[in-house]
Amino acid sequence: MNGAPEAILGILGGGQLGRMLALAAANLGIRCHVLAPESDSPAFDVSAFRTVADYTDGEALRHFADSVDVITYEFENVPTETLDLLAETATTVPVRPGRKALSTTQDRLIEKAFICDAGLRTAPFADIQRAAALEAAVQSIGLPAILKTRRLGYDGKGQVRIDRRDQTDAALTAMNHQPAILEGFVPFLREVSVVVARGISGETATYDVCENQHRNHILAGTSVPANLQPATERFAREAAILLAEQLDYVGVMAVEMFVVSRSGNEDIVINEIAPRVHNSGHWTIEGAETSQFEQHVRAVMGLPLGSTARRGRIAMENLLGQDMDKVPAILAEPGAHLHLYGKLESREGRKMGHVTRVIGE
Amino acid sequence: MNGAPEAILGILGGGQLGRMLALAAANLGIRCHVLAPESDSPAFDVSAFRTVADYTDGEALRHFADSVDVITYEFENVPTETLDLLAETATTVPVRPGRKALSTTQDRLIEKAFICDAGLRTAPFADIQRAAALEAAVQSIGLPAILKTRRLGYDGKGQVRIDRRDQTDAALTAMNHQPAILEGFVPFLREVSVVVARGISGETATYDVCENQHRNHILAGTSVPANLQPATERFAREAAILLAEQLDYVGVMAVEMFVVSRSGNEDIVINEIAPRVHNSGHWTIEGAETSQFEQHVRAVMGLPLGSTARRGRIAMENLLGQDMDKVPAILAEPGAHLHLYGKLESREGRKMGHVTRVIGE
Repeated sequence: MNGAPEAILGILGGGQLGRMLALAAANLGIRCHVLAPESDSPAFDVSAFRTVADYTDGEALRHFADSVDVITYEFENVPTETLDLLAETATTVPVRPGRKALSTTQDRLIEKAFICDAGLRTAPFADIQRAAALEAAVQSIGLPAILKTRRLGYDGKGQVRIDRRDQTDAALTAMNHQPAILEGFVPFLREVSVVVARGISGETATYDVCENQHRNHILAGTSVPANLQPATERFAREAAILLAEQLDYVGVMAVEMFVVSRSGNEDIVINEIAPRVHNSGHWTIEGAETSQFEQHVRAVMGLPLGSTARRGRIAMENLLGQDMDKVPAILAEPGAHLHLYGKLESREGRKMGHVTRVIGE
Repeated sequence: MNGAPEAILGILGGGQLGRMLALAAANLGIRCHVLAPESDSPAFDVSAFRTVADYTDGEALRHFADSVDVITYEFENVPTETLDLLAETATTVPVRPGRKALSTTQDRLIEKAFICDAGLRTAPFADIQRAAALEAAVQSIGLPAILKTRRLGYDGKGQVRIDRRDQTDAALTAMNHQPAILEGFVPFLREVSVVVARGISGETATYDVCENQHRNHILAGTSVPANLQPATERFAREAAILLAEQLDYVGVMAVEMFVVSRSGNEDIVINEIAPRVHNSGHWTIEGAETSQFEQHVRAVMGLPLGSTARRGRIAMENLLGQDMDKVPAILAEPGAHLHLYGKLESREGRKMGHVTRVIGE
């Protein structure tokens, strides 16, 4: 498409990421069709077309695919079954990013192996199929370490920290016998991430590396630029581009990284890849020439990538359910850019919105 | 409301202004209900609730009013009948801006008298009830002059320029016997406008004065800051605030002005008042801390006004139907912020989108 207003983007998933994608698409004159199981999905409120359906509802997926020009998604746990059902539809609507991005990042073991194959460092890790494997892994990796389910974990869910050897049984029980991996603890200086975009012709663009603060395994805030040596910043960006290329990626993805000290120098350890727009890229709405959301829409629709140039020094703060009483003060604060996601039910720990502050140049 | 996500804003009118209002409301977590007669209204694509109905459809208006917390509008020609019908509904939903803003600005004669009563200058003007009045007005105001319908004119529609005395009959015929006014020609140095916001408690905020270029009576582009002496800039802002106060205004409005030379100094002549967000304020989306659209939503929802601080030097260019072939180049231009309105039918002279360029500080 060349800016033709007939273009319709299909989005699987109706949360805040889908909502901000739909808002960005609207700026480019592109209408969105959102498919999500929950009737009160935040993305529905700003989308031209809406389907309330399960991701494995074949008939709904067929209608959805027939109505759109391109399909994308706002979350990495799109079931493989969904992609199979979409592939069976008569139409040939592209799904971007493609299957490789999902199959690689949906499984922590495959993801870590992929990162190592690309020549990048990860935390030490081991495949844990049974109790004996965990004993051996603890022996070789050391403690503390974190036992994680291979699939379907996010925001600290499906993770147990092991500090002492006598905690391994309890940790395995907590995994509920799902396939798991043990990850060694990385003593990091700071957590950073790189939001990278790759277009359909293979062109890439990265945003400035941002520094992340987590609280209770949930992102609390992001600041940009990150406090990094120039060589580390360059390496982090190049690593993100390399991973996007190795995934044949189309769209925006985020690579979470640890900055560690090695022989007194900064070094980068890749933590994980999110094959989608990402919370740590929300700062780009006001802080970059092109937001990560518009960038993703551009990439998946086959449009040129936009400029990722930064505008000022930025601080982004997430607003969780327990933070909603801050909203009146934020509304009254000059230069604070409030984003609320229109979620009707506020709960502790639920991401309700965020606020971005641009602090001069 | 204090950021409560239950809040629903009703918008009368579904064009690009309603669309950009709905997008701004979404950022604040506010859902919109748009009422417009055309089923393909651009604002519908980004609104949670939509009603296709005529502005004088009593039952539709009643349902609309019952479903929202505040009603606003995106165009100044909301029929008085609509306000009467809304006033008859059982609910007490506020309509902002209020009736005075509409009744004053819907009639060029009343508007000009109002501006003069506020102590500000307008072009010389005369009420034209019949042919004899036009003869006399031409005599006193001089030529060239412009004969305009008192009501329902925009983008140069309902206007005839008179250069010679023998054109008066033809001009009257072109008016189709509607009430008209004759306006003297203002030899201006430049055209500027001020976007001003006024909150429900009377607080006001103005954006930097912007300079406008028109082509065929349609806004072609806006640049900010305007090339003005500081005293003129101050006076223009104060004039806009004065007019908003005199109208008991709540929301964002634009005041179009001519900068003229008087005894070698710059002076301001008020051209017209638009009681709504305005094309000459589109630059604020990227160029100001708070866009005019968010500012209007804040004002009518009773929230604090946002910062109007400017970010950089700005050039906004309208994209009309005949400009749509520029879109691919704009998409490929670093730092060009494209906005398309999602209009399915492109016509010469139709506003299809705009592009904003921020040119450093």
